[in-house]
Amino acid sequence: MFNDFRTEGESPAYIQLKVYIETLIMQGVMPLHHKLPSTRELAGLLGVSRTTVISAYEALERTGWIEAVKGRGNFVSRAVAHLEEPPGMIDWKERLGRRALLSEEMDLMKHGIKWEKGMIAFTSIAPDEKLFDMGGVKRAFLDRMALEGDVLLNYGYAQGYRPLMQYLMSYMRGKGVEAKGKDILITNGFTEGFDLVLTAIGRRTGRILCENPTHQTAIKIMKLHGFEPVGVRMEQDGMDMEELRRVLGEGGFDLAYLTPSYHNPTGIVTSPEKRMELLRLLGEHEVPVVEDGFNEELRYSGAHAAPLIACAGTGNSVAYIGSFSKILFPGIRVGWIVADGGLIGYLESLKRARTIHTSTLDQALLFQYLHNGNFERYLKRARTEYKRKYELAIRGCREHIPMKSMSGEGGLHVFVELDESLDARSVLEECRARGVVFTPGDIFFTDGGGRHTMRIGFSRVPEERIEEGLRIIGGVVNKQLKASGR
Amino acid sequence: MFNDFRTEGESPAYIQLKVYIETLIMQGVMPLHHKLPSTRELAGLLGVSRTTVISAYEALERTGWIEAVKGRGNFVSRAVAHLEEPPGMIDWKERLGRRALLSEEMDLMKHGIKWEKGMIAFTSIAPDEKLFDMGGVKRAFLDRMALEGDVLLNYGYAQGYRPLMQYLMSYMRGKGVEAKGKDILITNGFTEGFDLVLTAIGRRTGRILCENPTHQTAIKIMKLHGFEPVGVRMEQDGMDMEELRRVLGEGGFDLAYLTPSYHNPTGIVTSPEKRMELLRLLGEHEVPVVEDGFNEELRYSGAHAAPLIACAGTGNSVAYIGSFSKILFPGIRVGWIVADGGLIGYLESLKRARTIHTSTLDQALLFQYLHNGNFERYLKRARTEYKRKYELAIRGCREHIPMKSMSGEGGLHVFVELDESLDARSVLEECRARGVVFTPGDIFFTDGGGRHTMRIGFSRVPEERIEEGLRIIGGVVNKQLKASGR
Repeated sequence: MFNDFRTEGESPAYIQLKVYIETLIMQGVMPLHHKLPSTRELAGLLGVSRTTVISAYEALERTGWIEAVKGRGNFVSRAVAHLEEPPGMIDWKERLGRRALLSEEMDLMKHGIKWEKGMIAFTSIAPDEKLFDMGGVKRAFLDRMALEGDVLLNYGYAQGYRPLMQYLMSYMRGKGVEAKGKDILITNGFTEGFDLVLTAIGRRTGRILCENPTHQTAIKIMKLHGFEPVGVRMEQDGMDMEELRRVLGEGGFDLAYLTPSYHNPTGIVTSPEKRMELLRLLGEHEVPVVEDGFNEELRYSGAHAAPLIACAGTGNSVAYIGSFSKILFPGIRVGWIVADGGLIGYLESLKRARTIHTSTLDQALLFQYLHNGNFERYLKRARTEYKRKYELAIRGCREHIPMKSMSGEGGLHVFVELDESLDARSVLEECRARGVVFTPGDIFFTDGGGRHTMRIGFSRVPEERIEEGLRIIGGVVNKQLKASGR
Repeated sequence: MFNDFRTEGESPAYIQLKVYIETLIMQGVMPLHHKLPSTRELAGLLGVSRTTVISAYEALERTGWIEAVKGRGNFVSRAVAHLEEPPGMIDWKERLGRRALLSEEMDLMKHGIKWEKGMIAFTSIAPDEKLFDMGGVKRAFLDRMALEGDVLLNYGYAQGYRPLMQYLMSYMRGKGVEAKGKDILITNGFTEGFDLVLTAIGRRTGRILCENPTHQTAIKIMKLHGFEPVGVRMEQDGMDMEELRRVLGEGGFDLAYLTPSYHNPTGIVTSPEKRMELLRLLGEHEVPVVEDGFNEELRYSGAHAAPLIACAGTGNSVAYIGSFSKILFPGIRVGWIVADGGLIGYLESLKRARTIHTSTLDQALLFQYLHNGNFERYLKRARTEYKRKYELAIRGCREHIPMKSMSGEGGLHVFVELDESLDARSVLEECRARGVVFTPGDIFFTDGGGRHTMRIGFSRVPEERIEEGLRIIGGVVNKQLKASGR
């Protein structure tokens, strides 16, 4: 006993000693009522200070493991009662429902593209953390904590932290949204927002209209909720309207899920005319819309189109889900839904039943950061940086990759369509061997198509490596084109 | 135009001017290509500095509302295109599914007890924010941000922030949990943890075994997932084992949901013997267990029983959901599940599909706070404070409220059973008129019972008002007893 105790790592010695003794008790080495060595004795035995032993004993007493008896010493006061025979093992997998199994199967972090450090990874569209404005974040935290730290740390409201709600409503008003009759709900990012809406919506036809290709996480969430995503082909200015009309004519939809700006994965911005036409057609067929405001802020040129929810004016058919994750800080999970006030009321109750509320601390930090006027400054800087990378990516793709077409008017990625004889996954395999990875486009398609497409995310690739990476991809594409006889 | 512009509130004048002009554009008062007044002119007109106007114009230009044409001035560059005729209104309520409607119906924040400021509210069991250790929180934030602020603000992992996961696993080991074969998932508090498990579990019998009464939020979540909670009567040392045997004999259960320590609402601590017996019986019937670790830390006396997951030893049938919300900071939504490693893998994928991950900033803040050694110090202080209130509450109830029985061995509330002729809701009504509210017990019962019970939460009632409040309740109970002829 005690002869294998060694302190290691950075946690305080007394904590390590406490854990060590706990283990001895748990393993039955020190049974109930066993007397512990005196603090002086143990300090000598272990070669640690007596204070360390005293602190460890005190901590063990506080957590109920030992008991100090005046004048007699310290005694083990807890027997860890295990069942003599642990209950039979549960086969958890066999107990799980469809949704758990499917979520694992569709989990790209588990079954997606793997890469190693040092590779050029065009797989991410997360923001570049080197751009983060740490000073602004610290200031915002300290400012808000000084004002109402106790409020931030206690329970908040499911709908959200009021100053942030007000800020974002006014931000949405600034995008042209008619606020009357609408309300806002703060969520744990886009993902929770979309999940809440799909939890709320009843299944009638079980079909959701969307762009094809579309956001892979959205496809996953739709399928997990038992909805079938029905995609409509994308053209350079948005959905193919002929196909949309045909699909709408073929049967009802419970919902449409649309990303009109910097669409993921194609980077396409739907034109103002198509936005209007979309709203008109979906209105005629009484299909409500979930608008994904994804990256709307990452506009590199002057052109800007109002979001669908603004185009709909006083209409209530569009629910807009927003997030600054791809621009500000994805690590703090804050997004929002602006929609019909009645709908928001139900989503609020669902949210309360699911996560009580989004971290008030995060909401307050974000609010104060915005309120301090950091957002526009930061956005300006981020746009400049990303624009430079964007232009490098566009130029690099054009110069080096033989392709059928390319899209991407902004955002953090471009989308490349190769010759149809090629398989992007086989291109990927060769590229990986040469130290470059990207996202094969097929995961974004609702109909099993897109095997010859790829998404090139550039936000986290260092500027000086963008061209290098694209040249390597181009080399592999050329090689495989030759092999296929084109 | 411009004559109704006034700055108000604390947001910078240029932002207010920007919003004002946006509104003029949105409302069509300033149409496309309309020329804005010069900055000098507008500054004079509004009585603001020229810098304010210049900043507002710059912000409008950045967000695409106006365009500066060299030598000619500023022009409206965006027409807010609304549909001439907004699409038809959607009747959202009619589009919603059972779950959204039920979550609203069962939403206590919407349909629960209302009270006004100044009343003595025994309704809350949230921690007392006056106890919050703000200095420790600030230090933890600054410490961690200095170490790896950029990592905290970018995307993290669904399973959790590694240092926190490790800390909590070792914390659970300290409670006697055998870690081998188990793993941990960080969640947005208990609520998300329980919701994830119920999302994952397939419905076979659709029945969940639980204590009667039990946590109202848990009842809500079970019902929202289409499970029927089947409650077993509580005795002073845990479930009535006879009833448990009978109920288990009557038919299968998909799960058991149990709160062995400081059970909500009764405050009962299940005895070590009953814990073992529970595990044995549930094991025989192959019923897996979700253990709610609720308030396990709020032990005011020496007695302490190991959690079920520790008692189960190497068995894998217990999934433990923990949270420090009622002790540390509920505003940052961090909880955890420790369970069979295979199960955690599926829950992780579900979590990723639902909220990506829990705020890394919050996890890191909590980790650093714990790592800095604040927890035990804080817990000691909180226990001392709450224990005083607990004793006041126990004494006050005994002295002033005529009752059949009372329970509560710790935690932040006690549970009172009145004479069965009484209706706690009618007691509540009279009490509210006298400035005191509490939680009527019926909401915690799975079988419509408990109409003569009440939960008295004392954590947020100032010490000096606890007795006063209980005396008022006692007065009303006495009055209603007399009226009922007892």
